[in-house]
Amino acid sequence: MKSVISLEEVSGVTLDVMRRIGLLLVSVSKEGKPNVMTIGWGFIGMLWGEPYFVIAVRPSRYTYTLLEESLDFTVNVPAKGLEKAAEYCGTFSGRDLDKFKACNLTATNAKVVKSPIIKECIIHYECIIKYHYDLNPKFIPSDVKSLWYPQDDCHRMYFGRITAVYADDDYKMKIP
Amino acid sequence: MKSVISLEEVSGVTLDVMRRIGLLLVSVSKEGKPNVMTIGWGFIGMLWGEPYFVIAVRPSRYTYTLLEESLDFTVNVPAKGLEKAAEYCGTFSGRDLDKFKACNLTATNAKVVKSPIIKECIIHYECIIKYHYDLNPKFIPSDVKSLWYPQDDCHRMYFGRITAVYADDDYKMKIP
Repeated sequence: MKSVISLEEVSGVTLDVMRRIGLLLVSVSKEGKPNVMTIGWGFIGMLWGEPYFVIAVRPSRYTYTLLEESLDFTVNVPAKGLEKAAEYCGTFSGRDLDKFKACNLTATNAKVVKSPIIKECIIHYECIIKYHYDLNPKFIPSDVKSLWYPQDDCHRMYFGRITAVYADDDYKMKIP
Repeated sequence: MKSVISLEEVSGVTLDVMRRIGLLLVSVSKEGKPNVMTIGWGFIGMLWGEPYFVIAVRPSRYTYTLLEESLDFTVNVPAKGLEKAAEYCGTFSGRDLDKFKACNLTATNAKVVKSPIIKECIIHYECIIKYHYDLNPKFIPSDVKSLWYPQDDCHRMYFGRITAVYADDDYKMKIP
């Protein structure tokens, strides 16, 4: 059973799992086919009086194409036992295969956005993209640039207004 | 007594106080004079493999001038009892007065950055600016633009790498 929960209650756990294992970002094509990728970077906070989840996606990613089409996404915190799935979804591209099928993940309708959530995850954020900008390689520190952008494939930052947050009632027992 | 604490433990509380009361952002002039302003917007998260606090400051603000000089800042979570100080520091400009003095706040040396912390606060983030970008009014949704940017005074977003996080040992008893 999944219930509405406050951003404050779950944001610390979300950042912790993001750093240690990764979060599962789900987007959907215009034909309704969902895709999932693992993210280790992102921000939770407030802007323009509302809560936002900011994600960073490179233009080379299949997810980038889907986000440009659907303009929404969900962020899902994997449960204990999904560590391998998080690794897999961060390694392979959804252009070539169905990662939901490959990892035994279930795409379930979200409450507000078109992108589905992942049923097996424990915390869910539904986000509507309100703004984006591209990191500018000119202003990135040179050590960061040589490490993360040797080919200038700079991230687009998507600002997703958080429209719903909910979690498994027993999520605390299932944190990975 | 203030001790090092994990980002995950205090990020939820920080976002909560930011939304309800505001956080105290401290910067310093090249002459060493500190200034404090209240922020209700900001992000905590990960980028380039490291933790970041992202803040939004308008070019018209005195803090903007100081950030451009010092390239670092601290974010301080006010203790219970500092609600009025947070309101005051969000209303008046440090160009015209010493807000530390006016609010009986004590500027104490930070561990790593030039900007001081506020002794009376309960949680402290020390941040070094690694990147910034200006929100582009062309891409801001029109309802957001008319509400928050009627004069195009768009925020500069500063990415502050979090180099230290610490808190009062009894911070949980003093959350406002």
